[in-house]
Amino acid sequence: MTHNENTSALYTDFYSLTMAQGYWKTNMNRRVVFEMFFRRQPFGGGFSVFAGLQSLIDQLLDFSFSQDDINYLKSLKIFEDSFLEYLKGFKFTGSLWAFDEGTIIFPTEPVLRIDGNLIECQIIEGMLLNTINFQSLIATKTARIWLASGKSSVIELGLRRAQGKDGAISASRAAYIGGAAGTSNVQAGKIFGIPVVGTMAHSWIMAFENEEAAFNAYADIYPDNSIFLIDTYDTLKSGIQNAIKAGKKLAARGKKFGVRLDSGDIHYLSMEVRNILDANGFTDAIISASNDLDEYIIETLKNAGAPIDIWGAGTRMITGGNEASFSGVYKMAARENKDKVLEAVMKFSDNPDKTTNPGVKQVYRIRDEKEMCIADVLVLDDDENREHIEKGCSYSFWHPSADYRNITHKVTGRAEPLQKKRMENGKLIFTPPSLVEISSFMHRDLDTFDQSYKRLLNPHIYKISISEKLRSLKLNLIKNYLGTVTWD
Amino acid sequence: MTHNENTSALYTDFYSLTMAQGYWKTNMNRRVVFEMFFRRQPFGGGFSVFAGLQSLIDQLLDFSFSQDDINYLKSLKIFEDSFLEYLKGFKFTGSLWAFDEGTIIFPTEPVLRIDGNLIECQIIEGMLLNTINFQSLIATKTARIWLASGKSSVIELGLRRAQGKDGAISASRAAYIGGAAGTSNVQAGKIFGIPVVGTMAHSWIMAFENEEAAFNAYADIYPDNSIFLIDTYDTLKSGIQNAIKAGKKLAARGKKFGVRLDSGDIHYLSMEVRNILDANGFTDAIISASNDLDEYIIETLKNAGAPIDIWGAGTRMITGGNEASFSGVYKMAARENKDKVLEAVMKFSDNPDKTTNPGVKQVYRIRDEKEMCIADVLVLDDDENREHIEKGCSYSFWHPSADYRNITHKVTGRAEPLQKKRMENGKLIFTPPSLVEISSFMHRDLDTFDQSYKRLLNPHIYKISISEKLRSLKLNLIKNYLGTVTWD
Repeated sequence: MTHNENTSALYTDFYSLTMAQGYWKTNMNRRVVFEMFFRRQPFGGGFSVFAGLQSLIDQLLDFSFSQDDINYLKSLKIFEDSFLEYLKGFKFTGSLWAFDEGTIIFPTEPVLRIDGNLIECQIIEGMLLNTINFQSLIATKTARIWLASGKSSVIELGLRRAQGKDGAISASRAAYIGGAAGTSNVQAGKIFGIPVVGTMAHSWIMAFENEEAAFNAYADIYPDNSIFLIDTYDTLKSGIQNAIKAGKKLAARGKKFGVRLDSGDIHYLSMEVRNILDANGFTDAIISASNDLDEYIIETLKNAGAPIDIWGAGTRMITGGNEASFSGVYKMAARENKDKVLEAVMKFSDNPDKTTNPGVKQVYRIRDEKEMCIADVLVLDDDENREHIEKGCSYSFWHPSADYRNITHKVTGRAEPLQKKRMENGKLIFTPPSLVEISSFMHRDLDTFDQSYKRLLNPHIYKISISEKLRSLKLNLIKNYLGTVTWD
Repeated sequence: MTHNENTSALYTDFYSLTMAQGYWKTNMNRRVVFEMFFRRQPFGGGFSVFAGLQSLIDQLLDFSFSQDDINYLKSLKIFEDSFLEYLKGFKFTGSLWAFDEGTIIFPTEPVLRIDGNLIECQIIEGMLLNTINFQSLIATKTARIWLASGKSSVIELGLRRAQGKDGAISASRAAYIGGAAGTSNVQAGKIFGIPVVGTMAHSWIMAFENEEAAFNAYADIYPDNSIFLIDTYDTLKSGIQNAIKAGKKLAARGKKFGVRLDSGDIHYLSMEVRNILDANGFTDAIISASNDLDEYIIETLKNAGAPIDIWGAGTRMITGGNEASFSGVYKMAARENKDKVLEAVMKFSDNPDKTTNPGVKQVYRIRDEKEMCIADVLVLDDDENREHIEKGCSYSFWHPSADYRNITHKVTGRAEPLQKKRMENGKLIFTPPSLVEISSFMHRDLDTFDQSYKRLLNPHIYKISISEKLRSLKLNLIKNYLGTVTWD
């Protein structure tokens, strides 16, 4: 299932190892809880898609140091032999709680919880963030593109502009979760079972004496899969004319065909090409388009009535385009003190938006009678303080940062805890869904959010609240640490 | 040397394989020449850095299909058994010409040439573009950041926000070429020998009872490498005060220390922290800064006199930030016709800027007497038309797209062909430089360009010209194909 053939635990930041040796030497390797959450929606949007969980789990199950890795660390002359011996036996032995992969997610809510010892929580940090951040970014971007296309056929063609080999492979996986119907990336097809798609490049046409010969040759070999690329020389004067000649021969054999536009004005050309195809009786010939497409271009082309059947998206979908990273962070929420009691902790920071919510937390998603989502609520979830939200009850929900704002809400529909325990003592305790199931789940989950949250720009902001108890804990910790909070 | 343990030739676009089967069935697998060039400078800048060559070569030397790969392709039911048999024996048998890795490069010039058979040229396309595009993007971004820092100490900390595992690893390599002095990525350190750096995260401080205990514990273990992260609670009221307490103990042992700022206003805080350090006699304590830094923020902080000694750059350096892809393309430049004669070809396209320069080409870099670069010139370089540019001679150089503009230039300094043959018949024919050598070469090469080309915004545009012969070939091909070129 994994594409990570190499599960070396060197997939980490150097400071994780220097800190780990520090914890080990000072006998600090106690139980801790870390949480992952993200800070703001990418692309100015109103939602994100949680992706990468299964890739993370695949790594965690086999995250370890080879003898070769140990030799490398030894060569750095900063780690003691006895610590390196410890690392040789290192593996992840903790528990993992997470939202279902494909869930629609919002800033500040912990989508993932690691409950383990301090060293393992630290060593997995870089890998965990790298995996979830990137796949969530691309699943989110793809979902936006897919929505802009009116949930029509979007295919992912990003290999050549992706950020490295795995930047292509794990992005193909994430794009599929986000709504892409297929990929051009053959290795992603093999590893994840994603449908692979594609027909011809300009070089095919240039390899033949002329365009007509190139189309005919292709049609002879792939009569069931002929999408002619028609912009190598001149789309309207040459490309579409030769496509129709080749298409007529296919039609005589009872076969269909299609064309692909890859340059020029897609709106104008698709209208003209559609007219020419229809005038020649090819009303069922499909038109696909590519050329630096993203959700904004697709939305405007759709609104203009461009008759595109298949959208090929590459660079901007597989890299995020003008936003190339997801703002996920991984922060300590609680740690055992000297007396083995789990204590809530928080980071204050000089930037208020970098201040964290303390304590072990669960997230409830509150729905109405029609299953539409109303709000998510962060509640405490440690052994002593486990809050439950029940249908039919009323609660005070507090704004996560404007401490003076609250609402009283009666839960009329389902209230569901989103974090689920998926690993215990380093072992898997559930049957992972297939990639198709994850993708279908994303589609269904997206449907339970009002359209206003899904606008491309300036969307309605979905409510994230914290419980009364969590608010009190946070305010107490701030007071204990800082005294009365002042502005200076 | 390579980090690509898996050199499966499935690292390709699906259409490369459907086209390959087409060429194979139609007996078209003749000799062709493909070139890679890029279309525009990223980040609104005036130069790019060519990177990824050695990673590409490492892949090419071992690019093949495993039995498992063949079984997967067979399962798609689109490839014939005899073609799959052919793929089983597939390897790259062509020649590769390229600029030296680390060379400063400009749009439209072919930085890389593949001379081989049509099938192999096609199958390697996705891998080739993916590798060179991404590493060139990151080397270029890093060079901009390094220049903005006044060529001071820049370290790469991007693992957690990189685009997948290899998005981190090969970006660490590229960042090192572009001027980074070290990386936090331990695996990149192991694979490429890049210095690994890093000390502590907020979680280190939060794991201890208080900040002072956390700093003291770290200093005890790493007295030679103590950079205290001082923003977990309050940089000025708490962090720097505790750092000085721990620093005094270190000083008593004859050791130095430093601090890291990761939030708040870096300008204000660094000035205050510098004053406090100096007032306590710690004039040699260094200050490092991180927190979403890029070339623009670093330039403005430098100009404001922020006393930062080490710049930690993560997300924006390792992903490109607001520009996440490099515009490299790979286009056919010539192909053998039926009579085994190599003919120049070109793509016209409905977008004039997607029209290519025809024929097999070399690039000369023209320098003045002081070795400073004046212009690059594209010339023909096939067996029949091999142009040389010599010192002391005068030439007509033409604007690559404005066909009516030319200059006559007398070459007063060195004129050097930039493409060098590095593989022949699929084998390496040179001794690859080390990563340190590539990085040093980039530094020297960058110095031979006037400062005006290196401004962050609105730089002077370096001149790229085409030779008289190449211009004639291009105009003839256009005339032959399109007749008189008109506007409609």
